[in-house]
Amino acid sequence: MNFAPTPRTTSLRSPEKLRYDKATAYDVLDAAHICHLGYVHDGTPRVLPTAYARIDDRLYFHGSTGSRAFLSARDEGVEVCATVTIEDGIVFARSWFHHSVNYRCVMAHGRARLVQDPDRRLQALAAMIDTLADGRSADSRPPSAKELAQTAVLELALTEVSVKVRRGGPNDDAEDLSLPHWAGHLPLATVAGEPVPDTGIGVRPPPYLP
Amino acid sequence: MNFAPTPRTTSLRSPEKLRYDKATAYDVLDAAHICHLGYVHDGTPRVLPTAYARIDDRLYFHGSTGSRAFLSARDEGVEVCATVTIEDGIVFARSWFHHSVNYRCVMAHGRARLVQDPDRRLQALAAMIDTLADGRSADSRPPSAKELAQTAVLELALTEVSVKVRRGGPNDDAEDLSLPHWAGHLPLATVAGEPVPDTGIGVRPPPYLP
Repeated sequence: MNFAPTPRTTSLRSPEKLRYDKATAYDVLDAAHICHLGYVHDGTPRVLPTAYARIDDRLYFHGSTGSRAFLSARDEGVEVCATVTIEDGIVFARSWFHHSVNYRCVMAHGRARLVQDPDRRLQALAAMIDTLADGRSADSRPPSAKELAQTAVLELALTEVSVKVRRGGPNDDAEDLSLPHWAGHLPLATVAGEPVPDTGIGVRPPPYLP
Repeated sequence: MNFAPTPRTTSLRSPEKLRYDKATAYDVLDAAHICHLGYVHDGTPRVLPTAYARIDDRLYFHGSTGSRAFLSARDEGVEVCATVTIEDGIVFARSWFHHSVNYRCVMAHGRARLVQDPDRRLQALAAMIDTLADGRSADSRPPSAKELAQTAVLELALTEVSVKVRRGGPNDDAEDLSLPHWAGHLPLATVAGEPVPDTGIGVRPPPYLP
């Protein structure tokens, strides 16, 4: 299944890196848990790192009911661009020009709306907890009514979505291949360290932590 | 030295996480090499992962002269929000509500302008290469006139900047401390793997690679 390209999801350049298949997009969205949420406030752009989770063809964000992004979504929703980027490496080419970064990036555009349905809100919040560690929502206290009242949940239908992927080594120009500079790529990965227990907590972490 | 807070760099919530000191902001900016660049196009937000470098009190971005963000900067510059986020860990609280992420985040607002001065452009591009690996610009081919003509460099003066930092374990409510759930935090770090040489390149990487 593919997303239908739109003017916002097509590129004036590097169209070869652009993809529209849901499988790749959802793999990237499910591998991260922070997106950069862009919205317009007073005519100027804001980009906020934000927790999110995907449920089927929808993306959920949460925030304080008092934050600007969520306040401005109260009535008719808010136009957003949610970008999730996973950096996979650095590409060293013989020329400055062809230096690059290996990455996977999903951009989702559309109007995010406040979720009002209590069951849906709870489901979205559970998904956000489970995005941090699979199974964690069942092993922690669900929100009280007071906490829920302070929490806004935004929903974005995943309809206008593009994926960009860059992998592998440098694409140097043929005439540069004999230059004496090292070329290749340096893989990067995010790794978890040892869990640090809170005061009064046993050292042994739950099985859903690495 | 501190940045002076403005309406865009103050928060309606979590003001305790906000800081304005240049030292912290520049440490974060110098530790990463991808920012999420937000701008407004046709009234809707766009968020693009973009390479950048800092020189003194200015941030530089580069892109294709044919890309939308850079095209729209041609005349009077373009309003941007450049957000750099480094994720340091995941925070597991006893309650869903207090789950969190440890991170350092810089947000810089302002009007980015195209750099016209050839020396400044070259200096900015060199800084972007050296951001990938310190000393790399001296060990790779500088751009040709043709490559320079395809490369746009944007400059953003760092004047309206905020830093948010969250560290350490969960801030659970006192009445939750006896709940039977593991609580603590999981440190995350980005690590480099073995450099992968390009075809025809010796295995031994240059000294400036990890």
